[in-house]
Amino acid sequence: MSVQKPSIPKGTRDFGQKEMARRNYIFDTIRSVFRTYGYQEIQTPAQENLSTLLGKYGEEGDKLLFRILNSGDAFGSVDFDKPLTPQVCEKGLRYDLTVPFARYVVQHQSEISFPFKRFQIQPVWRADRPQKGRYREFYQCDVDVIGSRSQVNELELVQMVDTVFGKLGVRVCIHINNRKVLTGFAEIAGAPDKVVDITVAIDKLDKIGLEKVKEEMADKGLEAGGIAVIEQILSLSGSFGEKLAAMKALFNGGSASGVVSETGLKGLGELEELFGLMDAAGISAPVEMDLSLARGLNYYTGAIFEVKALDWEIGSICGGGRYDNLTGIFGLPDLSGVGISFGADRIYDVLVGLELFPANLEQATTLLFAVMGADELRYVLPVAKALRGAGVAVEVYPEATKLKKQFDYADKKAIPFISINGSSEIEAGTVNIKNLQSGEQKAFAVSALQEILAFLS
Amino acid sequence: MSVQKPSIPKGTRDFGQKEMARRNYIFDTIRSVFRTYGYQEIQTPAQENLSTLLGKYGEEGDKLLFRILNSGDAFGSVDFDKPLTPQVCEKGLRYDLTVPFARYVVQHQSEISFPFKRFQIQPVWRADRPQKGRYREFYQCDVDVIGSRSQVNELELVQMVDTVFGKLGVRVCIHINNRKVLTGFAEIAGAPDKVVDITVAIDKLDKIGLEKVKEEMADKGLEAGGIAVIEQILSLSGSFGEKLAAMKALFNGGSASGVVSETGLKGLGELEELFGLMDAAGISAPVEMDLSLARGLNYYTGAIFEVKALDWEIGSICGGGRYDNLTGIFGLPDLSGVGISFGADRIYDVLVGLELFPANLEQATTLLFAVMGADELRYVLPVAKALRGAGVAVEVYPEATKLKKQFDYADKKAIPFISINGSSEIEAGTVNIKNLQSGEQKAFAVSALQEILAFLS
Repeated sequence: MSVQKPSIPKGTRDFGQKEMARRNYIFDTIRSVFRTYGYQEIQTPAQENLSTLLGKYGEEGDKLLFRILNSGDAFGSVDFDKPLTPQVCEKGLRYDLTVPFARYVVQHQSEISFPFKRFQIQPVWRADRPQKGRYREFYQCDVDVIGSRSQVNELELVQMVDTVFGKLGVRVCIHINNRKVLTGFAEIAGAPDKVVDITVAIDKLDKIGLEKVKEEMADKGLEAGGIAVIEQILSLSGSFGEKLAAMKALFNGGSASGVVSETGLKGLGELEELFGLMDAAGISAPVEMDLSLARGLNYYTGAIFEVKALDWEIGSICGGGRYDNLTGIFGLPDLSGVGISFGADRIYDVLVGLELFPANLEQATTLLFAVMGADELRYVLPVAKALRGAGVAVEVYPEATKLKKQFDYADKKAIPFISINGSSEIEAGTVNIKNLQSGEQKAFAVSALQEILAFLS
Repeated sequence: MSVQKPSIPKGTRDFGQKEMARRNYIFDTIRSVFRTYGYQEIQTPAQENLSTLLGKYGEEGDKLLFRILNSGDAFGSVDFDKPLTPQVCEKGLRYDLTVPFARYVVQHQSEISFPFKRFQIQPVWRADRPQKGRYREFYQCDVDVIGSRSQVNELELVQMVDTVFGKLGVRVCIHINNRKVLTGFAEIAGAPDKVVDITVAIDKLDKIGLEKVKEEMADKGLEAGGIAVIEQILSLSGSFGEKLAAMKALFNGGSASGVVSETGLKGLGELEELFGLMDAAGISAPVEMDLSLARGLNYYTGAIFEVKALDWEIGSICGGGRYDNLTGIFGLPDLSGVGISFGADRIYDVLVGLELFPANLEQATTLLFAVMGADELRYVLPVAKALRGAGVAVEVYPEATKLKKQFDYADKKAIPFISINGSSEIEAGTVNIKNLQSGEQKAFAVSALQEILAFLS
């Protein structure tokens, strides 16, 4: 066998100790918050049948699915006059956690107690063109509740977002809108058939500015009067109560078109209820009714959320919304749900950028026993064992090499304590432990476990 | 879109809340032990280049690799007169954690401090025929140290096995042998070229018995005198010291062939050192030098391990060994390492079989606030928030439906406490909490967080 220069597929990553410690810190924080709200963890397989995945993410999404060649003789009975891919690939890699969740709910509906509160933290794969911050394998952290239309669910998602970022020390603003309100925009703009066009255009307000948004709506055939109505909406400002009152007036026939939008009013009612619940529960982060928030996905039907870091420019780090028919495609209609997804990679970048990772995360080992010879080795083994039993991460250097090399090892691994023992310690029944940061050194009886633990902590 | 009956690919599994809680219990236990020995977690991508994977697992293994169709127009520039698979698939799914680990070490050698102690807990995929207990997607938990030939590393692996199964409450026997000793068998049996044949045969001793093992060795061309030597070895019994002394005599020319095996003696020396270290450190589980232990994999060069549950028949639940040239194929020769792998699915089955999972694992939520109306809902939200802040898993039922339905929900989710509050509680500023197991019910001031926590714990 010839020697290969090793590499990994483009768009994928290895995670070493330091990155893993940081990633686990994020996942563990998120997971611990999900758990205090009674959300249950599930996992689904990396491979799903292509029939489950195809057609769920639009034409572009279908192209970005990683397909798995059928095992065995995939090309054995292929008709070469027909497209080959569908004949040789029946499975694909999970593209997100939402479709597998919908599939899971339908497949396991008889075992599930509704409302079903689940979270899921697993990698997904997309054959996107890799670029900075965009990977072909990345983790999603999704939390959803399905089987209840109550705004209490929306509230809980906001509370979880608030708690997670509070624990991580990231100041965020939570942006909230409602898909029914967006429908209302189109209705009072006199273009109820143009909801998607209007939504797509105003979603870009932040990036391209009002004039370009208006141009785009005009290009899509929205008439001047309609554009004026949308402009009026987007220029609303003030508190939630002020915006709400203004929007209510507009949806009640107060716009230039005079159209009344029942759907829009329903959306405002949901927002009003949610903001009332947030007041009752108490949310620490600022929450904004953001009438320009649209989010791309077409399956949202109620509340939509997006979370932005206040002190670091990176776009949305968390987002989601309510959907009314996610499980319909798998044969279980009319099951309303709401969920959000935490963007682990972006949150990681924010924590690096703002230097918010706890300092001790990277210290894997607390104490290294340096080893001078076979007798010294045997002497420290029971001490190491006792300390590990007490939960301390302890290493025993495996070779009796030069002390310089053992110190270097401690240094490279950022191990804060070292213990070097020779024949005199063995005779005295003690271990010497040195704090490599402060220089403080102390001898302990080998049996003085509590004192050693105190010195190490 | 037509309605599809949802399913997942054969050989794969969904894991619900109960299974996840149990699996996490196993992984968390293993992980916590690895960490007290200073092992560092890494993760590698699910997809590896096929050039990394092919040829590493034998011909059979190559067939069992899941191959991923190239993205874009995979069949666009294909030569149909040549085999198609290599032209349309450049990547495959991880088959085990060992080859990716070797690839990782070589690729990141400049960033690594050797000896490098790593663990990795990730799924692997094999296109095996699915059957009971054999899956196409399953987790491996591997722990390895690379860059040191010291038997201290073997000792640590045994210690970790001992501690993990001690924590899980599973009584095990740790079987140890040495690949060099197996080479010695072949040498003193007069058939140094038949190590693999002899190894493969005696590995089946447990399953097929001595007579069939002898037949198989005869079929492979081992002569009667050689077979007699192997039989003599396999019939050795007694303590480690007794077996060791007997083997030393045989390898020193005391067998019927009179051949001296330096390799065999070296293997015995390693075993002697390891057993001495185990004595010094103290191992709770029984450890047996098992001269019939061979393990299939050809890359082992020193110690080999296998762990069996004493109270549940399921085969090996953990195994591994020392290898001297794992990274050679990727261009980094002469780096010796040793590792073991915990079989999570089998350990799961043992814990189910012996009823060793802690009882409270399945309880996700501690307290359910039942909801009678909008006012009651708002009233309990701050209490729920405070309890969650103290780490208690609390749910607020999202709809003001019939109490019967809310009780059913608590029952199905095995929630042990329920709180039902109406206008009288709001007036009094109290919450009522009932222990659903004991029937005990108590009223607390909403501000009496510590008392509520005590009642719930």
